[in-house]
Amino acid sequence: MQCIVLGSGGMMPMPQRRLTSLALRHAGRVYLFDCGEGTQLPYKELHVGLRALTVVATTHLHADHVLGLPGLLMLRAQMPDPPPLTLLGVPGLRRFIEHVRADLGMFINYPIQVIEWSGDPQAPAYRDDQVTIYWQPLDHRVLCLGYRLEEHERPGRFDPAAAARLGVPCGPLWGQLQHGSEVLLSGGAIVRPEQVLGLPRRGRHVAFITDTAPCAGLQPLLRAVDLAFIEGMFAAAEQADADEKRHLTAIQAAQAARRAEARRVILVHLSPRYDAAAAQALGVEAAAHHPLLEVARDGLLVELPLPD
Amino acid sequence: MQCIVLGSGGMMPMPQRRLTSLALRHAGRVYLFDCGEGTQLPYKELHVGLRALTVVATTHLHADHVLGLPGLLMLRAQMPDPPPLTLLGVPGLRRFIEHVRADLGMFINYPIQVIEWSGDPQAPAYRDDQVTIYWQPLDHRVLCLGYRLEEHERPGRFDPAAAARLGVPCGPLWGQLQHGSEVLLSGGAIVRPEQVLGLPRRGRHVAFITDTAPCAGLQPLLRAVDLAFIEGMFAAAEQADADEKRHLTAIQAAQAARRAEARRVILVHLSPRYDAAAAQALGVEAAAHHPLLEVARDGLLVELPLPD
Repeated sequence: MQCIVLGSGGMMPMPQRRLTSLALRHAGRVYLFDCGEGTQLPYKELHVGLRALTVVATTHLHADHVLGLPGLLMLRAQMPDPPPLTLLGVPGLRRFIEHVRADLGMFINYPIQVIEWSGDPQAPAYRDDQVTIYWQPLDHRVLCLGYRLEEHERPGRFDPAAAARLGVPCGPLWGQLQHGSEVLLSGGAIVRPEQVLGLPRRGRHVAFITDTAPCAGLQPLLRAVDLAFIEGMFAAAEQADADEKRHLTAIQAAQAARRAEARRVILVHLSPRYDAAAAQALGVEAAAHHPLLEVARDGLLVELPLPD
Repeated sequence: MQCIVLGSGGMMPMPQRRLTSLALRHAGRVYLFDCGEGTQLPYKELHVGLRALTVVATTHLHADHVLGLPGLLMLRAQMPDPPPLTLLGVPGLRRFIEHVRADLGMFINYPIQVIEWSGDPQAPAYRDDQVTIYWQPLDHRVLCLGYRLEEHERPGRFDPAAAARLGVPCGPLWGQLQHGSEVLLSGGAIVRPEQVLGLPRRGRHVAFITDTAPCAGLQPLLRAVDLAFIEGMFAAAEQADADEKRHLTAIQAAQAARRAEARRVILVHLSPRYDAAAAQALGVEAAAHHPLLEVARDGLLVELPLPD
């Protein structure tokens, strides 16, 4: 599982900090989170993989989070026989896409399924054979969603000693048990997977949260995730600005992540007011509130290993 | 008068060739021609001047020509007390802007006047105290407009000998005559400007033409312009592709410019299929058909001197 920061800025694209967009690549699929103006450029430059793009999850209908969608949709129409695409977002996303498609006569040669927030945080936004994506409403000036992607549980660890005790010969029968099938031994006995496997092992969990004041939705999204991408829009000195505009300061992001025992934090969606040095300082003040926190740079690639 | 190539590519933004957009800066105003996704970035980087932006002329409603507009409009809303803005384009431009404003809740704190093609090529698209912008329909897959910007005529050259013969003393009266006012001499005689000025001198003329097959509209747009920005979308080897998609090859652009006696040509809107070397080759084959032709690169700035 790889996370690739296509952009780490908020509000407007800057030469060194494009608008925030995160690509999560796993098992041959790409899940993209937000898609501001210009996202197609780093998407191509970083070789994220157009055919693999399966889901684009958008947080809210502000221009800096969705204006790159039309271009990306058209880019995807350039390859032969593009697979279907799923878009997630707030109510109004479908209308935005339909308007821009019609107004600009966009050429799109594949099915697009738009799934809008239903109002029920228990109902997953999306599910395939590898991952489930959950969403929660946050607290911004307009309805804004945070996301949590969970890799499905893997079967428990195989116990060779237990298999030997039960008389399962080393060979293909081990593999069948590991993959969850019961096996028939030559002596007539049946061995079930749970007799030789440990407890199911949890998959990797990643959160993507931007454009919100501190709110109740943060905790379920961040709870014990392996990696959280959270906006660090403002320095603590700009707390009043953050409150008024319904954004997190970098410190608030770190504190929320720590409370939820998120293991690692990468700050994204930095205000264009911060140059590289100021962004560094922002990271320093936030790192005092979380043990494993850094500020994103455009193009950052994080390999997320399987948990033990 | 300065022309600044913000981008020189067609169809999709590329790392070294952004989408075609041209800024023409003159007398404290900026006239922008086309505005594809990401245009706000070179607009900022090249310090074109946000407050000076007065007109955005769009050729047609395909995504690669207008998807940068919403971002640029919002960027312009960030400065204190932004002046009004005029948008030019085909019918449907207003609806596109209205949809995206409403769908994305865009913050715009200045008046936007949208002027859509009226069907009458004689009626100028826009006029202020410095320039007039004309338009013509071209031949693309959808209605597409070409533009010609004309600087107003300047008064004729002042003839000091004629002034002396008429008894106008050297001093402030000369200036009044130069600026078009008649003057009363101390002896009671009246001298009119045309007695001491040569014929009015023409201003600078610039054409912006992209996304069209060869058509009748090209000649009035290109006729004797000082500088023509024309699409050189395809090499001659791709003539069939150009015909089918209603684009010009670089050679066709050069030939049209030569027929119209356009003095200088800069090719823009190159296909993303061409790398730097291929673009160079495109320029070489086109340059055989026009005496003063080059291929644009992003960031190119051309100072256009006053004609003699």
